[in-house]
Amino acid sequence: MRNFRPVVAATVLLALLTISIATADEGMWTFDNPPIEHLQEIYDFTPTEAWLNHVRLASVRLGDGGSGSFVSPDGLVLTNHHVAFGQLQKLSTPETDYVSGGFLARTRDEERKCADLEINVLVYYRDVTDRVLGASNEKMSDQEILEARQAVIAAIEKESLEETDLRSEVISLYHGGEYWLYRYQRFTDVRLVFAPESGAAYFGGDDDNFTFPRHDLDMALFRVYENDAPISSPDHLPLNPAGARNGDLTFVSGHPGSTDRLYTMAELAIQRDYTYPRTAARLDMLIDSLHEYAARGPEQARQAGMLIMGIANGQKVQKGEYEGLLNPTIWETKQREETAFRKRVAEDPEMQSRYGEAWSMIETAEQAYLERVDEMSYRLMPGYRLGRLAQGLVRLVQESQKPDSERLEGYHDSQLRRRQFRLFSPAPIYPEMETFLMARSLEVMVSELGDNDPFVRIALDRKDPAERARELVEGTKLIDPANRKALVEGGPAALEASTDPMIVMARNLEPMLREQHDWKEENVVSVETVAHEMLGAARFAIFGKSTYPDANFTLRLSFGRVAGYPMNGTRAPSRTTFHGLLDRAYSFDLEPPFKPTDRLMARLDGIDLATPLNFVSTHDITGGNSGSPVIDREGRLVGLIFDGNIESLSGRFVYDDTAGRAVSVHAAAIDLALRELYDAGFLADEMRGDARTAR
Amino acid sequence: MRNFRPVVAATVLLALLTISIATADEGMWTFDNPPIEHLQEIYDFTPTEAWLNHVRLASVRLGDGGSGSFVSPDGLVLTNHHVAFGQLQKLSTPETDYVSGGFLARTRDEERKCADLEINVLVYYRDVTDRVLGASNEKMSDQEILEARQAVIAAIEKESLEETDLRSEVISLYHGGEYWLYRYQRFTDVRLVFAPESGAAYFGGDDDNFTFPRHDLDMALFRVYENDAPISSPDHLPLNPAGARNGDLTFVSGHPGSTDRLYTMAELAIQRDYTYPRTAARLDMLIDSLHEYAARGPEQARQAGMLIMGIANGQKVQKGEYEGLLNPTIWETKQREETAFRKRVAEDPEMQSRYGEAWSMIETAEQAYLERVDEMSYRLMPGYRLGRLAQGLVRLVQESQKPDSERLEGYHDSQLRRRQFRLFSPAPIYPEMETFLMARSLEVMVSELGDNDPFVRIALDRKDPAERARELVEGTKLIDPANRKALVEGGPAALEASTDPMIVMARNLEPMLREQHDWKEENVVSVETVAHEMLGAARFAIFGKSTYPDANFTLRLSFGRVAGYPMNGTRAPSRTTFHGLLDRAYSFDLEPPFKPTDRLMARLDGIDLATPLNFVSTHDITGGNSGSPVIDREGRLVGLIFDGNIESLSGRFVYDDTAGRAVSVHAAAIDLALRELYDAGFLADEMRGDARTAR
Repeated sequence: MRNFRPVVAATVLLALLTISIATADEGMWTFDNPPIEHLQEIYDFTPTEAWLNHVRLASVRLGDGGSGSFVSPDGLVLTNHHVAFGQLQKLSTPETDYVSGGFLARTRDEERKCADLEINVLVYYRDVTDRVLGASNEKMSDQEILEARQAVIAAIEKESLEETDLRSEVISLYHGGEYWLYRYQRFTDVRLVFAPESGAAYFGGDDDNFTFPRHDLDMALFRVYENDAPISSPDHLPLNPAGARNGDLTFVSGHPGSTDRLYTMAELAIQRDYTYPRTAARLDMLIDSLHEYAARGPEQARQAGMLIMGIANGQKVQKGEYEGLLNPTIWETKQREETAFRKRVAEDPEMQSRYGEAWSMIETAEQAYLERVDEMSYRLMPGYRLGRLAQGLVRLVQESQKPDSERLEGYHDSQLRRRQFRLFSPAPIYPEMETFLMARSLEVMVSELGDNDPFVRIALDRKDPAERARELVEGTKLIDPANRKALVEGGPAALEASTDPMIVMARNLEPMLREQHDWKEENVVSVETVAHEMLGAARFAIFGKSTYPDANFTLRLSFGRVAGYPMNGTRAPSRTTFHGLLDRAYSFDLEPPFKPTDRLMARLDGIDLATPLNFVSTHDITGGNSGSPVIDREGRLVGLIFDGNIESLSGRFVYDDTAGRAVSVHAAAIDLALRELYDAGFLADEMRGDARTAR
Repeated sequence: MRNFRPVVAATVLLALLTISIATADEGMWTFDNPPIEHLQEIYDFTPTEAWLNHVRLASVRLGDGGSGSFVSPDGLVLTNHHVAFGQLQKLSTPETDYVSGGFLARTRDEERKCADLEINVLVYYRDVTDRVLGASNEKMSDQEILEARQAVIAAIEKESLEETDLRSEVISLYHGGEYWLYRYQRFTDVRLVFAPESGAAYFGGDDDNFTFPRHDLDMALFRVYENDAPISSPDHLPLNPAGARNGDLTFVSGHPGSTDRLYTMAELAIQRDYTYPRTAARLDMLIDSLHEYAARGPEQARQAGMLIMGIANGQKVQKGEYEGLLNPTIWETKQREETAFRKRVAEDPEMQSRYGEAWSMIETAEQAYLERVDEMSYRLMPGYRLGRLAQGLVRLVQESQKPDSERLEGYHDSQLRRRQFRLFSPAPIYPEMETFLMARSLEVMVSELGDNDPFVRIALDRKDPAERARELVEGTKLIDPANRKALVEGGPAALEASTDPMIVMARNLEPMLREQHDWKEENVVSVETVAHEMLGAARFAIFGKSTYPDANFTLRLSFGRVAGYPMNGTRAPSRTTFHGLLDRAYSFDLEPPFKPTDRLMARLDGIDLATPLNFVSTHDITGGNSGSPVIDREGRLVGLIFDGNIESLSGRFVYDDTAGRAVSVHAAAIDLALRELYDAGFLADEMRGDARTAR
């Protein structure tokens, strides 16, 4: 019935391109397909292949959620403080808190190895669409197609890993319009070089998060080592301390996490009416719990700090995105786009027969999902880190027994190294916080599902939530990474024999979780995957690669200009200065989160307060881009992405540069801070390429 | 059928007060009825009668649109630069522009007498409700009631004027719930003492107008003279240079111009669907014209400056108010209030029979108005100042012939002195701008009404707009105030004999304008006045004086606290500092309107940039409050109102302190500016009561 190869006809490509065509500075473009003509036309700039390769190889991905770049020939990596936060916390002790106090290695010997930070560089990519789509055929059911697809992807990844020993991932672009093999060079010896105090990185705190004007030195420096020596990084971005000026064309190379710009109206309606309001309620509950825990004392506050920050961050994102969905203009834009797209497909009988069903398939799957969503929202492995570790260990052992193609996503051979890296991380676990969060999640589960629910019965084991949480955390041996390793090495026999209460619970809950997972795969995910492939193919048939794919935490190039925007009845400028930081500080009587660091206050006389601090630009970015370099035409670093403003959050669904802006630290502020505030001029010199004066 | 005396029953007063009851810091209270209990309860402060009298007698009203206060015992008056703007412009010449350059009288001899600035102080008030309402009876028609009312009001005003020689006005409160005789001491020898450069007063210009954070030194000082000597002003507000701090209770005493908080839904709907969108279109057209005129050269730009500023100001107000009406929450609040109020009235058979008709009367009148509104919107005296002067002169002569009670509003005996003051003002008139605006207004009239419209035929006199405008402005003698005076002195005979083309046009258009006026009075104004009196009486019956009346440019007392508010995803602070001004300046590359004055830049080193500059508070104010003092519990001046933020503009219809705020110059900034920037420490000393060190 369906053919998943796009019908790309030149004549169709020339047809009226009224839908979803990138305008202005829109787009998170893959490096194989940058909008060369558009850039030439609008900005009189054509990136060469050498320029693109240089930028790509200077770009890095950190852990599971951030971006960064090489900024010196000796493996120095610049990213955000908030991307480094977890590592800073893991390196800290109750006596020395690098998060609040900052860190500076004055020699390479002082650079501190991170517990579990992995850095990836995209060194190779290849189109494997033919092989992936060739694995399925028209006679298969949706479920069979999905399984065949997963099998061939796992095979490609495995072959590549064996061939190159490089981290290898087959990624889907254009919702299945294309499949590419991406190979990453993978570094795991990453050492902390510099971080400012959290008071400098997050001046304005949660209040100012996702807003502009902004005054944050949200930066951190790591260095990548191999064989106990800094790597050589010839592809790096030297610091241009003049930075980006108003109106300048610049580029952002980074890893936008996810967007849903190709969601159908049926999916958007479920998001708006169901997902967002419920998620908001859950996050509210969770953050209230964590504040309650943090109120127990300074050490508890430190333990909960990062999680609170992460959730508060998530709450603002949720709110901004939800408001985007509630915005009638955005809703109408999306509706108009879909109507035009459907019309375009319906007008062509061949396209209609191949792709026309997709919208109703998605609608049906969403309706099916709604029927079990309440139950599935609360039947989750309870607790925080220990719960997740137990679940991961059980799955790792069980999945490893199966052929690669039948395993759960995340447990394929090509993914095992990362999985183990995380499961065996020596990062500290705080039993008191674990107990608190375990009890709280059990309480919520009981109150939502009732104590007769079979899942709840296993989780509680006939105890009340507080008692059960204490029993689980006190009884488990998983806090020590060696015990986790031993369990995996012991295989199925060790797993079955384990009497560790956390493992026992995870083992007993797993069949129900697996059933849920399989049901959702069959009835929702596989249907929607196939339907989105049909839509992707239809889009491809109409637009080809004149558009960009939804974000999926793969490397993308965005372009844009430094520009203010209309705000609050007036104009937001394109940048702030250190004067602005002091204005906000004094305006709030120097009270946190508007308290400048003691360091800044002590050194005010020595710095030019008119120096640019943060700036905004029209780049199309999203979560995951944190830490991305802002790059000028000459390939130099002129800024450091660290946020988007409130108005940019609806970018999950649609790009809108009326007021949506990316927010960056200005290169001049990085240079000034290192030299004048942190006595780290040697790092600024290293970044500026003044090797002579560097250590 | 109707009785207009409120039925105040103690039991009813105690009934559930769910509608329009002042909560939080709401209210523009008359000085006879401040919310004493509320202040005591919330702020633990009870203003004494002496405190209230002192504040009232220290408060002044300027010209037709601003407020101010005595700030020294020697008649020194503080108001806003934008209230003083017109006088500064009138004192300026092409060679010396006091608007852009500022002004400082270093000695009293240098204080410059203003062309036509009148200052009023409310020295006496008395309740005259009985006499006013007693003039009408139940057998009269609405039109007869209105005429009877106007007659008795004119009589009371005339008697008071004759008795005291004080400016005397009968004002209506609570939409006719009460009538009061207000007597003002009137000063017409007012001299300019100090004004900063417009670049300091309006830093951020039209962009930042009606917004916060803000950085404006929007102040000016006048001195009131009598018999060529400064008056003694024992009731004045000494400057407290510490100013208002975050959370402080303060008071604002000033003259809010108008609010429409008691509008019915029928009126609000017409405002929303008809009035606001049309006014917006007209203002857009007008400001485009003025920019076109200003582009002719620097002198033309200077001439058009104030008008452009005034209109841009009006546009933002319109936009803010319109958005208030489009805000579903505000609309629902108003709808809920009206529903509850109507229900309350309907539940009491006596109230229902007396007042129940009011809503449908207003609805009928609004529908009637809609039928002629297109025609009436464009049948207006064309041109700018010369057109208005000609119309005023014609009316003054014609109306003076009639008994006082039959005259048009504005031409009663008690109002003639002011009328003449303005008609004979020697303020400069710019023929080129007059010609330009006359031509433009004629063009609009033709395009909207067509050239066959009888009104248009008289206005154009068979010429094209440009030709006709030239003829009118070149031919008129009205630019010279002596000729205006001669015309009035010559009476009806001189008016009839005049061949001045501007007078001829005004004379010929007057019958049609008068017919329009009379029709609207009879079919709309009188009906709605009576209906609002019924509603006022019904409110009075239910709430008594536990509420405050709509603003009507009479003296009011507001109270509130200095407080930031949620803004743009984060918090706006309660104040700004000079650092903030510099941040905004450098953020915009020192480009106008964000260019600091040369004076400030030259003296940066000498001032503490952390000094508060502007601040926000929850006071319930509106246009007309400009220049109002912000007063602390001890009766000292801690700030100077000069604006409301965008969020406060919906205050025309409903008070909302979620984000709506009054914006003031901080006392510390006034003190610092006079001493450190303008070498006018002697004025700061005079304001602080340091008489020794004053001149």
